[in-house]
Amino acid sequence: MTTANKDKLSSARFSEATDAFVEVFTASVDFDQRMAQQDIQGSIAHATMLCKIGILTEKERDSIFQGLQQISEEIQRGEFQWSVKQEDVHMNIEARLTDLIGIAGKKLHTGRSRNDQVATDIRLYMRTEINAIIAVIERLQIALLDLAEQEANTIMPGFTHLQVAQPVTFGHHLMAWFEMLVRDKERLEDCLKRVNIMPLGAAALAGTSYPIDRELTAELLGFSRPSANSLDSVSDRDFAIEFTAAGSIIMMHLSRFSEELVLWTSAQFSFIELPDAFCTGSSIMPQKKNPDVPELVRGKSGRVTGHLVSLLMLMKSQPLAYNKDNQEDKEPLFDTADTLINCLRAFAEMVPHIEAKRENMFNAAKKGFATATDLADYLVRKGMAFRDAHEVVGLAVRLGLDSERDLSELSLIELQGFSEMITEDVFDVLSLQGSVAARKHIGGTAPDTVRAAIQSARTALSK
Amino acid sequence: MTTANKDKLSSARFSEATDAFVEVFTASVDFDQRMAQQDIQGSIAHATMLCKIGILTEKERDSIFQGLQQISEEIQRGEFQWSVKQEDVHMNIEARLTDLIGIAGKKLHTGRSRNDQVATDIRLYMRTEINAIIAVIERLQIALLDLAEQEANTIMPGFTHLQVAQPVTFGHHLMAWFEMLVRDKERLEDCLKRVNIMPLGAAALAGTSYPIDRELTAELLGFSRPSANSLDSVSDRDFAIEFTAAGSIIMMHLSRFSEELVLWTSAQFSFIELPDAFCTGSSIMPQKKNPDVPELVRGKSGRVTGHLVSLLMLMKSQPLAYNKDNQEDKEPLFDTADTLINCLRAFAEMVPHIEAKRENMFNAAKKGFATATDLADYLVRKGMAFRDAHEVVGLAVRLGLDSERDLSELSLIELQGFSEMITEDVFDVLSLQGSVAARKHIGGTAPDTVRAAIQSARTALSK
Amino acid sequence: MTTANKDKLSSARFSEATDAFVEVFTASVDFDQRMAQQDIQGSIAHATMLCKIGILTEKERDSIFQGLQQISEEIQRGEFQWSVKQEDVHMNIEARLTDLIGIAGKKLHTGRSRNDQVATDIRLYMRTEINAIIAVIERLQIALLDLAEQEANTIMPGFTHLQVAQPVTFGHHLMAWFEMLVRDKERLEDCLKRVNIMPLGAAALAGTSYPIDRELTAELLGFSRPSANSLDSVSDRDFAIEFTAAGSIIMMHLSRFSEELVLWTSAQFSFIELPDAFCTGSSIMPQKKNPDVPELVRGKSGRVTGHLVSLLMLMKSQPLAYNKDNQEDKEPLFDTADTLINCLRAFAEMVPHIEAKRENMFNAAKKGFATATDLADYLVRKGMAFRDAHEVVGLAVRLGLDSERDLSELSLIELQGFSEMITEDVFDVLSLQGSVAARKHIGGTAPDTVRAAIQSARTALSK
Amino acid sequence: MTTANKDKLSSARFSEATDAFVEVFTASVDFDQRMAQQDIQGSIAHATMLCKIGILTEKERDSIFQGLQQISEEIQRGEFQWSVKQEDVHMNIEARLTDLIGIAGKKLHTGRSRNDQVATDIRLYMRTEINAIIAVIERLQIALLDLAEQEANTIMPGFTHLQVAQPVTFGHHLMAWFEMLVRDKERLEDCLKRVNIMPLGAAALAGTSYPIDRELTAELLGFSRPSANSLDSVSDRDFAIEFTAAGSIIMMHLSRFSEELVLWTSAQFSFIELPDAFCTGSSIMPQKKNPDVPELVRGKSGRVTGHLVSLLMLMKSQPLAYNKDNQEDKEPLFDTADTLINCLRAFAEMVPHIEAKRENMFNAAKKGFATATDLADYLVRKGMAFRDAHEVVGLAVRLGLDSERDLSELSLIELQGFSEMITEDVFDVLSLQGSVAARKHIGGTAPDTVRAAIQSARTALSK
Repeated sequence: MTTANKDKLSSARFSEATDAFVEVFTASVDFDQRMAQQDIQGSIAHATMLCKIGILTEKERDSIFQGLQQISEEIQRGEFQWSVKQEDVHMNIEARLTDLIGIAGKKLHTGRSRNDQVATDIRLYMRTEINAIIAVIERLQIALLDLAEQEANTIMPGFTHLQVAQPVTFGHHLMAWFEMLVRDKERLEDCLKRVNIMPLGAAALAGTSYPIDRELTAELLGFSRPSANSLDSVSDRDFAIEFTAAGSIIMMHLSRFSEELVLWTSAQFSFIELPDAFCTGSSIMPQKKNPDVPELVRGKSGRVTGHLVSLLMLMKSQPLAYNKDNQEDKEPLFDTADTLINCLRAFAEMVPHIEAKRENMFNAAKKGFATATDLADYLVRKGMAFRDAHEVVGLAVRLGLDSERDLSELSLIELQGFSEMITEDVFDVLSLQGSVAARKHIGGTAPDTVRAAIQSARTALSK
Repeated sequence: MTTANKDKLSSARFSEATDAFVEVFTASVDFDQRMAQQDIQGSIAHATMLCKIGILTEKERDSIFQGLQQISEEIQRGEFQWSVKQEDVHMNIEARLTDLIGIAGKKLHTGRSRNDQVATDIRLYMRTEINAIIAVIERLQIALLDLAEQEANTIMPGFTHLQVAQPVTFGHHLMAWFEMLVRDKERLEDCLKRVNIMPLGAAALAGTSYPIDRELTAELLGFSRPSANSLDSVSDRDFAIEFTAAGSIIMMHLSRFSEELVLWTSAQFSFIELPDAFCTGSSIMPQKKNPDVPELVRGKSGRVTGHLVSLLMLMKSQPLAYNKDNQEDKEPLFDTADTLINCLRAFAEMVPHIEAKRENMFNAAKKGFATATDLADYLVRKGMAFRDAHEVVGLAVRLGLDSERDLSELSLIELQGFSEMITEDVFDVLSLQGSVAARKHIGGTAPDTVRAAIQSARTALSK
Repeated sequence: MTTANKDKLSSARFSEATDAFVEVFTASVDFDQRMAQQDIQGSIAHATMLCKIGILTEKERDSIFQGLQQISEEIQRGEFQWSVKQEDVHMNIEARLTDLIGIAGKKLHTGRSRNDQVATDIRLYMRTEINAIIAVIERLQIALLDLAEQEANTIMPGFTHLQVAQPVTFGHHLMAWFEMLVRDKERLEDCLKRVNIMPLGAAALAGTSYPIDRELTAELLGFSRPSANSLDSVSDRDFAIEFTAAGSIIMMHLSRFSEELVLWTSAQFSFIELPDAFCTGSSIMPQKKNPDVPELVRGKSGRVTGHLVSLLMLMKSQPLAYNKDNQEDKEPLFDTADTLINCLRAFAEMVPHIEAKRENMFNAAKKGFATATDLADYLVRKGMAFRDAHEVVGLAVRLGLDSERDLSELSLIELQGFSEMITEDVFDVLSLQGSVAARKHIGGTAPDTVRAAIQSARTALSK
Repeated sequence: MTTANKDKLSSARFSEATDAFVEVFTASVDFDQRMAQQDIQGSIAHATMLCKIGILTEKERDSIFQGLQQISEEIQRGEFQWSVKQEDVHMNIEARLTDLIGIAGKKLHTGRSRNDQVATDIRLYMRTEINAIIAVIERLQIALLDLAEQEANTIMPGFTHLQVAQPVTFGHHLMAWFEMLVRDKERLEDCLKRVNIMPLGAAALAGTSYPIDRELTAELLGFSRPSANSLDSVSDRDFAIEFTAAGSIIMMHLSRFSEELVLWTSAQFSFIELPDAFCTGSSIMPQKKNPDVPELVRGKSGRVTGHLVSLLMLMKSQPLAYNKDNQEDKEPLFDTADTLINCLRAFAEMVPHIEAKRENMFNAAKKGFATATDLADYLVRKGMAFRDAHEVVGLAVRLGLDSERDLSELSLIELQGFSEMITEDVFDVLSLQGSVAARKHIGGTAPDTVRAAIQSARTALSK
């Protein structure tokens, strides 16, 4: 609903007559006009088919084409007069078409109804949006790959429970984000399979007695096939729910990235610097840089989950086939698509300018006895029993704590005091570099492994 | 966000520069300009207080008053130039004020910050909305009381499991809806207690070093008291969640009313006639009247629950105090208030014109052996053991089923065939009228009891 | 959590010591013991791999195999002593294994951690559950196909807005339900692709310094591949969200079926008879049959959506990698799987025994002027302009309403009074049979078309 | 549902007969047995009333009392045989009562039905739970007050956007948490008003033809009044939704506390030490202490919001009056109450043992130029224009940044280089102590103000 009409509804507050109030209350044109081009696209295919099966003459068809072309241009130029009286995008365009070309405009509606028409429009619309979202995901993926490559050797603490656990590379951490997006893209592609099926021809609910050629219309519109059941076609909104579910997961991922960016830009972590354009500063405190964009994106995750819930609740226990309730499907969908595109875009443009403060990252990893596990593994590999190895490491860490030194800063003699199995080569595993380099199996954090993962991701993406 | 700016954001899709994109992405003026009058109201109180404590001269204060007055009028006339560059409603108004009155405009910001300012504005805004919603609830309540009074004697089937169970009166059924609204109003009033507390003075998060008089400002703005902790004041959004929770229950109630209206207008039930203005017809099928408004309202119930979820998720695990995430609180709130007001209004205007098809209701009640329980109670009152009474009634119903007659249509002799305890007075309890009249305790469906309930409700409402 | 331990937690209420309280509060063994067999299965594969790479001797491996085998049997026999002291399923089994076979039990934990172990267990568990759910969906689909075939010629009213719109066949309506399940199955299969990836080897978060062979372990466990990033592996719960999202849509579908079953068994519709086993009766009202199972299933739809929301909120803004929050993923998953399997099973067993009351369905279709659209199409096919056809049909329906007759019951002469274009063949389109038979394009309601759809569905299912 | 029966349902998987499956599927006794004592309590009041109005003899009443007393003891001793055949808690107790005392047991059911009985039980149950939750909230509040008092002078950085903004006291921060709980308690008390209304007497849906005295029963059970409408009484579940909504906000608050505790225990912040009992350590890394309890509580916030959503969806669009769907209301309620009590208790026992690392807090506040605002306010108070003051402060901070000193560490001469208005007294405002002490208005962070707030909170609590 445009702000203007929203205001009309609420500010009016009982001053206008019931009829006028209900007209605005039930109209959808304020928001469904977004699907105008899809509506026209669907009508062109429908007219083509109607002509092919002899319902429209070629002349009528061409007249329809011309009328729709003109309407499309009027809309693009912002000159089209949308009317709440005409209720929705379909009736607005149909009314204008009849103005322009007369009775042939009405004939366009042969063998279809608004019920299958709106279902078709929204699927066409969503196809476009999903493809756009996939494209932005890929932009963000490439940004992550580039940064990960650049930071493949950068050592940072890996956290569990927000406690320093083991050293990882920043590149490896970025590739964790990348992997989330791989799944997000897959989910959207799977969703698209179910979006890209054509309901047109289901008419009001039962199909039509005209000998329509649904295969042809589907082909003209790029749908993979016509839907298999007319009742289902006009009442199905699964694809909308599936899309907002996939969108909720995407936003949850962005919210996780955001949380880390906010943490890392705090004075306490100070692991990265975000580009100025994505933050706000303060004239009075020049050192202050609020990570506004990550915070806002984190905040927007609730929004899309809210839409998901609203759609599930919308469809809950509706009897077949079409009910007016379904008009409520559009605003959540549109807002979900907008939110995804904008948030993903914000990240895609921010990531390339994230600056790693490598020294801080390294020092933080150094402080947390992050290689304690490596020492235990070392001792076990040398033949010590698990339980004993754990005890030795515990004693070594205790010494480190007391003397404020990392394990790698203890002397060989000190270490040997805990176990004679320890020799000079222990420092290979106690160093952060040694620790990460050792994790070189598939999925591990070793720089070379991460570089290989990046390379393989690039290949997959370029397909 | 206005449609225009939304379109700007999404249609732009990567063509404009990052800076311009981020500017629009992070700005809130498109939606928070709704709170402009509250922002001005808050500023006037703040200026009054600042003058009282000697921070502003009387001249400065009066100049601020004049400037704000002019801005208020510009906004009401639709002439105010909102600018995304100025980010939000507060900065837009502040910038304009400084244009108009110079440096004194800046001084208005002494001892406050945008963090407490926005929290104040939104509470003022919600106070107005909640009061408006309560007023519409009362309109709907009165409409229900009037209709219930008119239909206090109208007998209809009472359903459990959508199976006819016992006869009730239509008036009694309408009073069940009324009771739901009683609780809804109470919940909003309880919520209002927590909304109507003033955060102003919390400044950015810690309060201010100026000797502000928060009691005074609270009094000027009609708040019940200043908030007790500055950190909490700028980060608290409980009231928004509580409001959308109360709103979700209201919508759930309207959704239940709607479900019944839709059922009752179906050809199968045909219990009521809805006024034409709330339905759509069909030129081709003049008998068809789609109950559009109830369906749309039913559909909108998901919307408000969606907003509730989005706000809970928004606040989840945010550290204190203010974070940019919180900017996301406004759109769900505004849309919740609009949805509630419009849906309640639609019902308030529809209910007086609901026409009961009394004969159909009565016949439906008659067909369901709805007085079987009354017969059992009759026998028990005559001294028969429970188990035996149930058996007798079962046999009587079976006879009714086989001979397609209601219990009240069986003869005395037939009934006495099942038990000799049955005498002529049995027909008092077997009739639908007798059945409902007997339920005359508090909360029962007897016409007189319902009338008393209506009377007592009217008294309570008029207070 | 078992009822026993739940009660322990809450009834204890402050009487026991803090330590004991926290122990129960943080333990997960009450619910995660459900994954015991998966835990053992994962350990067997891990031991096999460890032996292959030389970390375990064959003797140690075999000893581990024997110990795990014995534990598996103890669990199946209900003799295993679960202990809250051991916190979770993994520690319980590990402790028991060490009891049984000594230090080799500890060595099993080489190169893995509980973080990747639990992620592996839950994926194995969900793989089993998803396959079981797909199997029940197929049972329900077959039941629907059988019933649809049987009712392919049964005419009933097709509704929009719960108003009679056009005649359809009951078989066609059932096939609409079938189509929903087709998508449900597809979504689960798509989800399974992302479930069936192996996190094992990610260890705590960074991988391990042991030269593990993750390809081998994945192969042994039937996973399609090892996961690509260790940080992501231990923190990813997307699959759980995706599963509950797919489950929410399934439950929404079952809730829609339920709504219609409840409507159809009401006295007002009386379209079907449900089998007694799925209803409850009343000794006192033998005619009453409450559709308990559909109502309960409808009620359970909220449950799964609730789980979906809880999981999205769980993961929202968690920093990498593993946090204790994630322990909360299991109960929603388990309950979702149980709910789906039970509700689908209930429907699969109920559908074959649904009895169509064909005469009632037919009569209901007859009363609603359901062929008005067919008459309009007829006139247009004869060359009449749309607008005129609509007017003619409106007048004919009006006559029908006034004289309480269906369109097909008007005489030819009466009809010709509205338009001379009408001839004897009009009765082919005015009859319900003629109306449905005419809708014979893909997706239409014509009996032959529906039979073809059933046939093609059977073929697809049998693949 | 007990684990045993759950397993029965799902592991059975199609092996048992349909009837047995449906019996378990539809039974509620596994979970509603929790309300057994409330069921008995309600029956005792009902019997008392029935005797008073002459439906039960005193002998029958006493026999019922004795029977119920014995059953209550059997249940408490764990000896009661719950049976799925008897479906729910009410039928189980009724059947046992009839076993024990014969036909008088059946007579107890006069004038009531399971529909109003279950509604009464659950309200009695919730009244107890809500009071228990309020009691734990108060325990936590007292713990916070004690800690806040102890830390009233402890200076820490106040954050906005997780960036150091201004100094606050730790006591003030704790009081922000306290304030959230004040509202939580209020919301529960408001909810309790609507819980504590008695549905008993509504019978199946229409009331009863017996002359019951609902005022008496309400008084006996401690309800504030009988409900006003019988249809509403058996179908209303508002109180359950309102309770889970209040619970969701409580959990959101605990999740915010948790987030901060997790942050503060990280090596990067290191502001506090959590007591060992609430954390897990690692034998191998003795320095590591995972904040398990806060993380788990944070994770549990999604759970309660999930329950809220499930209940809203449960009630959505249900027609009046009772439907089987409503059986689904109990598990979410029980789990919400358990979760709240356990999480609140965990915090109430943890908070007294939180150890502030005051030096770390102080140093963190010192590093962030947290008094920059104070300097600006100082200059404005001295008469400098806003804009100029901001410029001066910006320059001073820049010097501090370049020379790695806080503002308070700059010399008077250096400061005077930026403005001659600056005099010796500037250091009063530049010190962290001076900054917090100056914020002494209501709600401000000054130690004395916080102490006064604590005192006033203690007074309010002790009422």
